[in-house]
Amino acid sequence: MSQRPVVLVVNCNTNRVMTEQIVAIAESASNQTTKIVGVTPAWGPSSAEGYAESYVTAVATMDAVLSHREHFDAVVMAGYGEHGREGMRQALRQPVVDITEASAYFACLLGRRFGVVTTVPAAVAGIEDSLAVAGVLARCAGVAASKVSVSHIADDQARTFAALETAGRELLLRGADVIVLGCAGFAGLDKALESSLGVPVLDSVACAVQMAHSLVCLDKRTSKVGAFTPMDEAKPWTGRKLGEMPPTP
Amino acid sequence: MSQRPVVLVVNCNTNRVMTEQIVAIAESASNQTTKIVGVTPAWGPSSAEGYAESYVTAVATMDAVLSHREHFDAVVMAGYGEHGREGMRQALRQPVVDITEASAYFACLLGRRFGVVTTVPAAVAGIEDSLAVAGVLARCAGVAASKVSVSHIADDQARTFAALETAGRELLLRGADVIVLGCAGFAGLDKALESSLGVPVLDSVACAVQMAHSLVCLDKRTSKVGAFTPMDEAKPWTGRKLGEMPPTP
Amino acid sequence: MSQRPVVLVVNCNTNRVMTEQIVAIAESASNQTTKIVGVTPAWGPSSAEGYAESYVTAVATMDAVLSHREHFDAVVMAGYGEHGREGMRQALRQPVVDITEASAYFACLLGRRFGVVTTVPAAVAGIEDSLAVAGVLARCAGVAASKVSVSHIADDQARTFAALETAGRELLLRGADVIVLGCAGFAGLDKALESSLGVPVLDSVACAVQMAHSLVCLDKRTSKVGAFTPMDEAKPWTGRKLGEMPPTP
Amino acid sequence: MSQRPVVLVVNCNTNRVMTEQIVAIAESASNQTTKIVGVTPAWGPSSAEGYAESYVTAVATMDAVLSHREHFDAVVMAGYGEHGREGMRQALRQPVVDITEASAYFACLLGRRFGVVTTVPAAVAGIEDSLAVAGVLARCAGVAASKVSVSHIADDQARTFAALETAGRELLLRGADVIVLGCAGFAGLDKALESSLGVPVLDSVACAVQMAHSLVCLDKRTSKVGAFTPMDEAKPWTGRKLGEMPPTP
Amino acid sequence: MSQRPVVLVVNCNTNRVMTEQIVAIAESASNQTTKIVGVTPAWGPSSAEGYAESYVTAVATMDAVLSHREHFDAVVMAGYGEHGREGMRQALRQPVVDITEASAYFACLLGRRFGVVTTVPAAVAGIEDSLAVAGVLARCAGVAASKVSVSHIADDQARTFAALETAGRELLLRGADVIVLGCAGFAGLDKALESSLGVPVLDSVACAVQMAHSLVCLDKRTSKVGAFTPMDEAKPWTGRKLGEMPPTP
Amino acid sequence: MSQRPVVLVVNCNTNRVMTEQIVAIAESASNQTTKIVGVTPAWGPSSAEGYAESYVTAVATMDAVLSHREHFDAVVMAGYGEHGREGMRQALRQPVVDITEASAYFACLLGRRFGVVTTVPAAVAGIEDSLAVAGVLARCAGVAASKVSVSHIADDQARTFAALETAGRELLLRGADVIVLGCAGFAGLDKALESSLGVPVLDSVACAVQMAHSLVCLDKRTSKVGAFTPMDEAKPWTGRKLGEMPPTP
Repeated sequence: MSQRPVVLVVNCNTNRVMTEQIVAIAESASNQTTKIVGVTPAWGPSSAEGYAESYVTAVATMDAVLSHREHFDAVVMAGYGEHGREGMRQALRQPVVDITEASAYFACLLGRRFGVVTTVPAAVAGIEDSLAVAGVLARCAGVAASKVSVSHIADDQARTFAALETAGRELLLRGADVIVLGCAGFAGLDKALESSLGVPVLDSVACAVQMAHSLVCLDKRTSKVGAFTPMDEAKPWTGRKLGEMPPTP
Repeated sequence: MSQRPVVLVVNCNTNRVMTEQIVAIAESASNQTTKIVGVTPAWGPSSAEGYAESYVTAVATMDAVLSHREHFDAVVMAGYGEHGREGMRQALRQPVVDITEASAYFACLLGRRFGVVTTVPAAVAGIEDSLAVAGVLARCAGVAASKVSVSHIADDQARTFAALETAGRELLLRGADVIVLGCAGFAGLDKALESSLGVPVLDSVACAVQMAHSLVCLDKRTSKVGAFTPMDEAKPWTGRKLGEMPPTP
Repeated sequence: MSQRPVVLVVNCNTNRVMTEQIVAIAESASNQTTKIVGVTPAWGPSSAEGYAESYVTAVATMDAVLSHREHFDAVVMAGYGEHGREGMRQALRQPVVDITEASAYFACLLGRRFGVVTTVPAAVAGIEDSLAVAGVLARCAGVAASKVSVSHIADDQARTFAALETAGRELLLRGADVIVLGCAGFAGLDKALESSLGVPVLDSVACAVQMAHSLVCLDKRTSKVGAFTPMDEAKPWTGRKLGEMPPTP
Repeated sequence: MSQRPVVLVVNCNTNRVMTEQIVAIAESASNQTTKIVGVTPAWGPSSAEGYAESYVTAVATMDAVLSHREHFDAVVMAGYGEHGREGMRQALRQPVVDITEASAYFACLLGRRFGVVTTVPAAVAGIEDSLAVAGVLARCAGVAASKVSVSHIADDQARTFAALETAGRELLLRGADVIVLGCAGFAGLDKALESSLGVPVLDSVACAVQMAHSLVCLDKRTSKVGAFTPMDEAKPWTGRKLGEMPPTP
Repeated sequence: MSQRPVVLVVNCNTNRVMTEQIVAIAESASNQTTKIVGVTPAWGPSSAEGYAESYVTAVATMDAVLSHREHFDAVVMAGYGEHGREGMRQALRQPVVDITEASAYFACLLGRRFGVVTTVPAAVAGIEDSLAVAGVLARCAGVAASKVSVSHIADDQARTFAALETAGRELLLRGADVIVLGCAGFAGLDKALESSLGVPVLDSVACAVQMAHSLVCLDKRTSKVGAFTPMDEAKPWTGRKLGEMPPTP
Repeated sequence: MSQRPVVLVVNCNTNRVMTEQIVAIAESASNQTTKIVGVTPAWGPSSAEGYAESYVTAVATMDAVLSHREHFDAVVMAGYGEHGREGMRQALRQPVVDITEASAYFACLLGRRFGVVTTVPAAVAGIEDSLAVAGVLARCAGVAASKVSVSHIADDQARTFAALETAGRELLLRGADVIVLGCAGFAGLDKALESSLGVPVLDSVACAVQMAHSLVCLDKRTSKVGAFTPMDEAKPWTGRKLGEMPPTP
């Protein structure tokens, strides 16, 4: 590989400021070894919290990636606990890394039970489902809501940090020895929280960028046998392209 | 309730002929006690088989139901193994019945292990995930693909039936004592397959219509505590309406 | 079906007043679509709470149903958490609906985790076992004892209701978003508890009558392959009839 | 303890010849350290195979033990895979050892996965349920039916042995490295099967007698807190005695 | 068997005083039916608490047993929650009983959920892993640390006992109805704790000696098919003997 | 970090040729971004296959790493399916990556169910245990033995490759869509097997080196709360150093 691998980092919502923050974290984590390209869905929720919006992000991010016309080597799905990774895997041959999975896997290497600090209570159930389908829920000591919604994270940094600390301490009491930041919007708070709680705290975007880069280095791609068989082989296809999916009147 | 309850039966694809078939099954199952209203998504796949299309159906059906302007008392989601039921539940106060769940529950009353006969191999994984999240995968002896894709079910009834028989017999060998028809398009084949296999065979749409009708009779609605907290309570809302989601340029 | 289906609703104990209450709930739930026939065991405990009595009810109810000489289309077993459903299914060809299962299944359609409010602490373990064998324990947030024994439910309605409220609130804290009334004797308290707790509260007898009626409408019967193979096929039979089981000296 | 402990070994059926065989095995296993007292239920099936009869044996054996007027120190329930152990534990203070559990526990000490050879296919499901509730199903590689019914075991010893060999070999292929004889009627066949299969083969009655004797030596009794709270403490009692349960007209 | 069976009871640490205590408990439990031979590893930790030391004990005890030149009929591994039982089983043909397993199995016969009282918090995780691999974690209500380290158990008997009481009561609140003493060093405290807590309390060494004696009486040995295939059959061997493993310079 | 991170790659056996092969794979995978230092245990098995040797490798590798006097930033444990990772984590502050875990996690990103191709049948059980404790066994479709022992891998490359192909195809039939090479000695065979089987094939050492490098880049260390509390904090320490563990006479 003479050039740096290109990793698409897809925000799950339409907030371009958040995309920029995520890209900054990803670039910092990749340490110049990877070219990070931020992708913002053209439609969908401005922030996603709960099942209904989660399904919308699944399609909006798939639409955004399939509409991307430049070359890329891997995709990072930067919506913590959001649906859609299996669909993206069926639609692509490049490796697809969900930040929910990647951070759980690194957490499993550093401790015995990890805890997830997330935003609002309505987001907890979907995160649990995502970890269960990934097969690592047994390693999770709990998912705790900080009660700071995505759109209010930046309002008052001190209050946000205090809320994360409280949720983190609750998880330590429930047996967690590693903490995962369960929202891409919490970017940049891991170091301070690590100092405060005395356990490793993982930024999920940074974890995913690392695994995406690794998969490109290892020259591995998504399996196209079984569950992720390409759609045009799975059945007679009808000319529709997913990238043109939202109908124009 | 002076009038018959109104149950929306939502097809997961854009094929109106299939919606009509589903409505016919639903009306037959409800035996005039329920008013069945068929809903066809305005966009999305013409047939859904596999993860990528499944996520699209989750949003397209939610969009269709939220755009429905008439009164209704319950929703039946008629895409077997498709994603989206949790999103629909968060978005609505009426009860929401997924045909995957409803047929599994009736199967659990009639036998000890049920088997699911579905369409293409790429659909198997999503069905297993759906049963796992529903909590009843332990009661499932297996999901077997008939290798008849949705769009070819009607091509040759005898061939389709033979393929279901073969898949059904395989499931009996794997320990199933009840069979569920794992595609709304298999409607009307249950009785003949029951005779052939010698075990109960369940039509999933018929099962779901029964449970939807029951929930209306029992005057029960979706819980609005916890996972299905309405979106406008879950976070500060932004004026976007899910029913207007696909953006017009 | 020119006539209303006949559903036997079998009380698990010998208390005829409780049978009448259960029949009243069942008739109310069935809304005249079903003919409800109450059955009271001829012997066994006057109320069943705990493992030893639970096994007795399993046999006494099977004996009562097999001794029933009139036509019936389905059976509802109205002892919450009691043993015996698999034996009844082996002994009969009609569908058999246990109120423990039926209420769990409806609860799974309305929320993500259900809680069960029951009578005495000694009843909790058997309920957990029953839900585990049914395969839905993973969807159960907990079983909480109200500490009101079956024979004291009617002593003081206000005290009984207050005890249910307390147990229900504990279950909400443990993550339940739907409550199931885990004793047929709690009949009639669901609506008030629903108002008090703000989540759906299910009467298990009403749920089971609905599913029994549905199975008759769908013309489905218990599988006779595998676990529920009729006894006379399972082995050389010895002339004994279960309906004549309690020996007369 | 100046005298040998007395262990009641309760046959699950009314066949006194089988009780004698079971007692012979138990005496041989206990090697004169224990006084074995055989108990035969006064009523119930002459052989038990399948759910319906299993529940009858649960009550008939409990009735037989509670009617036993002599002193005893422990109970062995000698019906493999039959229901009732939890009821017996609630009803007694002495330790209660089910042959299904005891043989599974010894098997877990000798290998990594055990297989169970049983009688008819209809008995398999109940055995699986029993192991699941005991919490050791994960250690079981499978339950295989020899298709020899209880009442035909003695018809042709060579045919019975050949059927056990065939079922045993199937289980080795499924990963078993220890075999449990899953019927008290298979008594005496363990040594020859061990030679034939090349893996340890356990007689479940012998295993249970050993554990019952050990519990008496260790001076341990059934816990009376929680699930096995005595009935007269669990609720106001009604004068009925379980030992007088089958009503006389 | 004309002579008493010989059971090696292997301490997991190098503390000979503790070996003597364990032997005393074992002799008391075996009641003269067994000849108990204490074995102390020649190297390894003086007390084992936590994963690193646990792996050392696995090898040091295997080394000690394989270096034992006298005849023996069975091995009891007397390190509660320590690693190594599967290695010992592969290395030997005699039965091998881990005190962690044996005490769990007896506990499962006496109650529905057992609790384990252990020493320091760092020991809890390894105990949970051991019970999980044994397949009985589902029957365990919890493992609670008394915060008394192995080397301080004897410092102040009253303080040790009070700490066990506190941990035991916490486990009763978490649903345990039987308590297991999760350290061989707690020997002799079971009776007093039983009186204090009102539930059966099991000494794990006593339980294991009973099961080892039973396996010898039943003439059963470790399976040599599958996971415990002897090493010289598993692969071409290299002349090294495990009993000479620690290299001398 | 001005210098390349140093990753210790610890062979599990004493075969220095194999250590060199592993280092070569590791260097190739790390692509000059990491300094790889091979470590060979000073004692223990020349190849490890089965439980007994696995426990020896756990201690021998811990001994080798704790005796290493140069600076290092992370450890890769290069024995597939071998015990010891939790001990190494308790003993160190640097991150510790087991090749069993790392390859499973990358496999989970590329497919839905992975299969493991290993050496001899006796190694299968330990691998299953390792994946179970790691919490990802549910994502594993099976572990298949190629029947090529570690010491014979290099004897005949064509025969070894053919054996891997056969085992791999068996796993695809059991539902695997990704294959993991379950022995460090299979290094270099992944690309050809990938071509032959048509699914991603992962080299476990390469995967682990990637994750170790990532953890160093992310500046994360092993949690020192809970299960991996350092030994000197876990209890009063006795002057013994693990690096001096094998006693010299």
